[in-house]
Amino acid sequence: MTLWDKGDPLDNIMLKYTVGNDHVLDLKLLPYDCKASLAHARMLHTMGHLTGEELEQLQQGLNEISDLVEKDMFPIKMEQEDCHTAIEEYLTKHYGQVGKKLHTGRSRNDQVLTALRLYEKDMIEQVKGMAQDLAATLKGSSQTHQSTPLPGYTHMQKAMPTTAGAWLEMYACSLSDDLRLLDVIGGIIDTSPLGSAAGFGVPVLEVDRSMTSKELDFSSYMENPLQAQHSRGKYESMILHALSQVMLDLNRLASDLILFNMSEFGLVTLPPSLCTGSSIMPQKKNPDVLELIRANYHIVVGEQMKLQGLCSNLMFGYHRDLQLTKGPIMSSFEVTMDSVLLMEKVIDGMEINVVACEDAISPEMLATQKVYELVQAGVPFRDAYIQVAKDL
Amino acid sequence: MTLWDKGDPLDNIMLKYTVGNDHVLDLKLLPYDCKASLAHARMLHTMGHLTGEELEQLQQGLNEISDLVEKDMFPIKMEQEDCHTAIEEYLTKHYGQVGKKLHTGRSRNDQVLTALRLYEKDMIEQVKGMAQDLAATLKGSSQTHQSTPLPGYTHMQKAMPTTAGAWLEMYACSLSDDLRLLDVIGGIIDTSPLGSAAGFGVPVLEVDRSMTSKELDFSSYMENPLQAQHSRGKYESMILHALSQVMLDLNRLASDLILFNMSEFGLVTLPPSLCTGSSIMPQKKNPDVLELIRANYHIVVGEQMKLQGLCSNLMFGYHRDLQLTKGPIMSSFEVTMDSVLLMEKVIDGMEINVVACEDAISPEMLATQKVYELVQAGVPFRDAYIQVAKDL
Amino acid sequence: MTLWDKGDPLDNIMLKYTVGNDHVLDLKLLPYDCKASLAHARMLHTMGHLTGEELEQLQQGLNEISDLVEKDMFPIKMEQEDCHTAIEEYLTKHYGQVGKKLHTGRSRNDQVLTALRLYEKDMIEQVKGMAQDLAATLKGSSQTHQSTPLPGYTHMQKAMPTTAGAWLEMYACSLSDDLRLLDVIGGIIDTSPLGSAAGFGVPVLEVDRSMTSKELDFSSYMENPLQAQHSRGKYESMILHALSQVMLDLNRLASDLILFNMSEFGLVTLPPSLCTGSSIMPQKKNPDVLELIRANYHIVVGEQMKLQGLCSNLMFGYHRDLQLTKGPIMSSFEVTMDSVLLMEKVIDGMEINVVACEDAISPEMLATQKVYELVQAGVPFRDAYIQVAKDL
Amino acid sequence: MTLWDKGDPLDNIMLKYTVGNDHVLDLKLLPYDCKASLAHARMLHTMGHLTGEELEQLQQGLNEISDLVEKDMFPIKMEQEDCHTAIEEYLTKHYGQVGKKLHTGRSRNDQVLTALRLYEKDMIEQVKGMAQDLAATLKGSSQTHQSTPLPGYTHMQKAMPTTAGAWLEMYACSLSDDLRLLDVIGGIIDTSPLGSAAGFGVPVLEVDRSMTSKELDFSSYMENPLQAQHSRGKYESMILHALSQVMLDLNRLASDLILFNMSEFGLVTLPPSLCTGSSIMPQKKNPDVLELIRANYHIVVGEQMKLQGLCSNLMFGYHRDLQLTKGPIMSSFEVTMDSVLLMEKVIDGMEINVVACEDAISPEMLATQKVYELVQAGVPFRDAYIQVAKDL
Repeated sequence: MTLWDKGDPLDNIMLKYTVGNDHVLDLKLLPYDCKASLAHARMLHTMGHLTGEELEQLQQGLNEISDLVEKDMFPIKMEQEDCHTAIEEYLTKHYGQVGKKLHTGRSRNDQVLTALRLYEKDMIEQVKGMAQDLAATLKGSSQTHQSTPLPGYTHMQKAMPTTAGAWLEMYACSLSDDLRLLDVIGGIIDTSPLGSAAGFGVPVLEVDRSMTSKELDFSSYMENPLQAQHSRGKYESMILHALSQVMLDLNRLASDLILFNMSEFGLVTLPPSLCTGSSIMPQKKNPDVLELIRANYHIVVGEQMKLQGLCSNLMFGYHRDLQLTKGPIMSSFEVTMDSVLLMEKVIDGMEINVVACEDAISPEMLATQKVYELVQAGVPFRDAYIQVAKDL
Repeated sequence: MTLWDKGDPLDNIMLKYTVGNDHVLDLKLLPYDCKASLAHARMLHTMGHLTGEELEQLQQGLNEISDLVEKDMFPIKMEQEDCHTAIEEYLTKHYGQVGKKLHTGRSRNDQVLTALRLYEKDMIEQVKGMAQDLAATLKGSSQTHQSTPLPGYTHMQKAMPTTAGAWLEMYACSLSDDLRLLDVIGGIIDTSPLGSAAGFGVPVLEVDRSMTSKELDFSSYMENPLQAQHSRGKYESMILHALSQVMLDLNRLASDLILFNMSEFGLVTLPPSLCTGSSIMPQKKNPDVLELIRANYHIVVGEQMKLQGLCSNLMFGYHRDLQLTKGPIMSSFEVTMDSVLLMEKVIDGMEINVVACEDAISPEMLATQKVYELVQAGVPFRDAYIQVAKDL
Repeated sequence: MTLWDKGDPLDNIMLKYTVGNDHVLDLKLLPYDCKASLAHARMLHTMGHLTGEELEQLQQGLNEISDLVEKDMFPIKMEQEDCHTAIEEYLTKHYGQVGKKLHTGRSRNDQVLTALRLYEKDMIEQVKGMAQDLAATLKGSSQTHQSTPLPGYTHMQKAMPTTAGAWLEMYACSLSDDLRLLDVIGGIIDTSPLGSAAGFGVPVLEVDRSMTSKELDFSSYMENPLQAQHSRGKYESMILHALSQVMLDLNRLASDLILFNMSEFGLVTLPPSLCTGSSIMPQKKNPDVLELIRANYHIVVGEQMKLQGLCSNLMFGYHRDLQLTKGPIMSSFEVTMDSVLLMEKVIDGMEINVVACEDAISPEMLATQKVYELVQAGVPFRDAYIQVAKDL
Repeated sequence: MTLWDKGDPLDNIMLKYTVGNDHVLDLKLLPYDCKASLAHARMLHTMGHLTGEELEQLQQGLNEISDLVEKDMFPIKMEQEDCHTAIEEYLTKHYGQVGKKLHTGRSRNDQVLTALRLYEKDMIEQVKGMAQDLAATLKGSSQTHQSTPLPGYTHMQKAMPTTAGAWLEMYACSLSDDLRLLDVIGGIIDTSPLGSAAGFGVPVLEVDRSMTSKELDFSSYMENPLQAQHSRGKYESMILHALSQVMLDLNRLASDLILFNMSEFGLVTLPPSLCTGSSIMPQKKNPDVLELIRANYHIVVGEQMKLQGLCSNLMFGYHRDLQLTKGPIMSSFEVTMDSVLLMEKVIDGMEINVVACEDAISPEMLATQKVYELVQAGVPFRDAYIQVAKDL
């Protein structure tokens, strides 16, 4: 078999293929895995599966790892595949036998699910905080421009007058919807998978799932262990959909701003620090950040499609396919948070050109108003409409 | 220009293209549009824009239409384009001038949004009711099979024993998640767009948006009129995502059942009335309904993608693009409801073959149990694992 | 079980669910199925499975059906499910025993595939013809406006001058790419599935697949009968992707035209016969056709997603899931052809406003030209760039 | 504004957001950019825009860079944003003024397009080579198992006998279709964008686009400079669709293999070196590679969706959105090539269990054969069918 010019021997390709970039992605899961491992160790001790001394050692080891993680000094090697192995190897290396005991009563399946879910809960809270901040900035700007006129469009044709305030407030309102959605999804996923093991619970050994659930601040635990596996990809797809809704608001707002920033409109001036130049056209001030925000909506939708595809047409239980849910969720959280943060910066720094806005209200935009003045004077609506249309 | 062999003159193509199948889809909206028109008429009367007699006439006319609609005797002609025109034309034909007055203080934009939203609220309640019924059927069957063993799989490999009860219950649990999602989305869309007109509210004329909102049982009205247009497609995308989650549960359950129904498994027997034959293989009993349920998940995801695509990269305000949101939402409600109904019928009618299930628990599936027995006896987990692996 | 307020008894729901709208979609397949059945009958006669008289009768019957189809007088009843049953029932009713013999040596699986493929080949040729016409219209208009200046944009910012001719020609060039793609896909699918039966060929009986392939003008037949089933959904996904590429060109062209038609630009005037009004704003001339063309790109992409989802994660062989490939392919052909036809009408009828175009070339658009004049005079590019930038 | 706990100051977020991972992705473009820059320099010299000495210097510099790239010793810094800046900076640093002259007559827009297209042409050839190898391996194995019986399934129900040879050959045939598709797309994109600059060609300065096109082995150059920008994302979407077709074949083949590898089937034994174990179930031999191949189909489809979304609803000309086309194309080439390579390894190393295959042909699978024996003996097909069905 040709190995082609990429030079990698097949074993490397296989390792890369099965591990994927888990060893990179898992860096984000490390703090959550430490936290969950601590809770698990405490439960094992309470249930009599670990001595006090063993718990002590594991706590010390996990705290050491947490410290290293915080300092970016706990790498995960490709051969270790994931954060779970890296943690177990560290503990076994430094504390011997007891490191091997930590996996008692759990499987990598529920371990990764628990870490992921803690991570997701955390990220959802962060996105919510940022989206709230953006909504507040939009509301603030909306109040400033409460009576700045703005042409309202339908079919991209000037229609009736509105205000810059109403336009900005609309996006704040829409973000509130997204926040409600994020909130309920945050609630749905707030259930501990720890102790579901490979999806069939833990035989023989007694474990206290309620205890670990409480220690980790989950509002409940998944009583049906099979559901823990079934929820993988499904919960992530819900989250990605909610993120796509936030991104859609940003996509539409970016579309407006890019248009209003055109010389043909001139209704807003973007902050120069957020614009870039051209390599051959010295006059250009390009709204790159907004274009990327607009495009990143489609990136998040694509990530969502991956999940909606890969977890379908499968029998129940864990499949390795589900490993590929990690990348889409992590990259989408990141791009959504950055987009929200940057959009806030844009709204904060942009100027609305009041005079240009006023000038943009052309006389024909008042046609509907005239229709209603006739209606007010007793003319039936359709007749008034026809009369005004004739005069235009 | 060649008109090709489809024979339609261009004007027909244009009419068909712009009207689409609105005149068919809108048949479903007629009852909701009548209801909303009634509320609007009452409000116009309260605000002094209609006399008592005019209101009387409109009420009578709208009731007549409602009666005709119920009897499937109120067609919408293609030239009428949509239900709104069909209603106005009926009223004008039978009651004269006053028919023209009904459009006072609203636009087709908020009229269609209001009817759609009433329809969507209704359908969400119906889907929820059906999904609850299915969950109840699953729970019932789950209790019957609480101790029927079932091989649990990971990677499609026999892993550890579970029970048919746990397996069925899992789907009931997952449907509960979907119900929470549907519920909050039902709440998000429960806000009246009536009075937002073309997205800029109604100038000059006083309208009471709160009154129509209450009459129509909305929990509030959309205060920012621009948001009414912005929400179009966005709300529908949320609904479609929630429906896709219901369909995903059905897709996975159908995948299990198709597999368990194979002669290689023989764990379930599907109700014969839900199987079909082959045109050349007389021995076949094919699980067509389940295959279509599985496939219809992808149909709903495709419809969702349409919405997530078509309402992006657009400036604010209404665009005709948004007209195309109607088809996806209507067909997806229908296919989801039918799928849930038929899945309930499958669960209700199928047999779980207890003996075959028992036989399917092969000895190596107890390996993990043996590991934990060693752990219980004091062997560290990793060592016990290695020891049992050696003995297999 | 509640039957909800849709009123349909469950049996109807089941029938509707499994038959879907095949009985409607199949009206389009009828002429192709008649043609393929004729070829099949001739082959059966040649191979000695039908007498001369029997062939005579079948030919007469199929010709009668073809005539009725042409006059729209050959309905398919829902209980008949599809065109294949409708044809067989007609023949058996009017010609007795011999009607039953027509299914010899084929299955519904290869029958529907053959009819579909003939239909698809035909439609691809039609789309190609229409796209060529549109490209010719664009080229014609491009020549007329060879020297009409047009502002060129990057980042939606005025960049450098181009011409209306170059802009129109670009879309003609891009359509040529799409035509190449359509062409090769037309070639890939041009292979007869007839005789593959249910995917395993025809046992015992001798059939001449090469003969039917030639009679039906296929360039070859699928030698591996399993591939006939494997190709279902896959070939359709290829076709839909090619159609989506045509639609993307139309989507981008529509986006340009909607923008240039805005009062802020005024660069084109759309044909009034293709614009519509507003129900409350008498001044509006809305580019509805273009908006729907823009949106229909996303519709076709959604249909493509359905196929790319539903034919994955399945074992080899036919699954009922694949029945749902019919709708997406048929609706996408239709919407693409109508869109191309209407876009040609738009291009044909629109005015490019030459004076407005000339006025739109603002002085700063010549900056790059100035840079190159300095370069021509010996200044290194980067230095020239900096110097011109300073002067702006 | 809260900077949240990710610790990055906003400027870093912005840089990361706009640069994205271009500085990483562009490592793959470096060799192609060097090659294109060389051709461009030679053309500038021929046209008299560079002296012989200047050309000499640029050639030397670009060769140095090529050498460094080959040794992985030419990093791109995040502040440099992309490979184009990194190259220009190197040349200017080491060769002064002349480095600045290299950008004469081109823009970053056509520079990146040219490098991308050279890269894509190369990758398409590699994918084709690999897919041909896989098809050859499948054909080889198919010949070995020409007469190994295999149960053929429809609706996932045993239907009629086929052979392992036919089954394997089917995938080889389908890959041939994909190769035809890849081939024509390779032809469509084989056109040089160099000299289209920012989409408007190069003013004032004379450039010879035909010369650079020939030097770079393109079969032609894009005469309409606007089309160069229009094709961005569009060509990539075509490529991704073709890759998704290759992946679909692999997805289906992997689905078959995972099923046949189940203990319930036992028809194939996968190479142990390609299976993995479980962290708690010592008996497991999991087909991870095949599961990931199956899942990676959906990853590629998701990437394709990103492109089909982000390049729509945009006016003509370059938008920064299009920068985000790089990641999807690069990751999809990589995952497709690795998947093909690993699938070949699987096919090469797996065992088909002939005895189990023979045993799997159950008597009822011969029903159709019996029907045809009766037909052969003169019984009309439908009657023979009914008779055999009765006897089952």
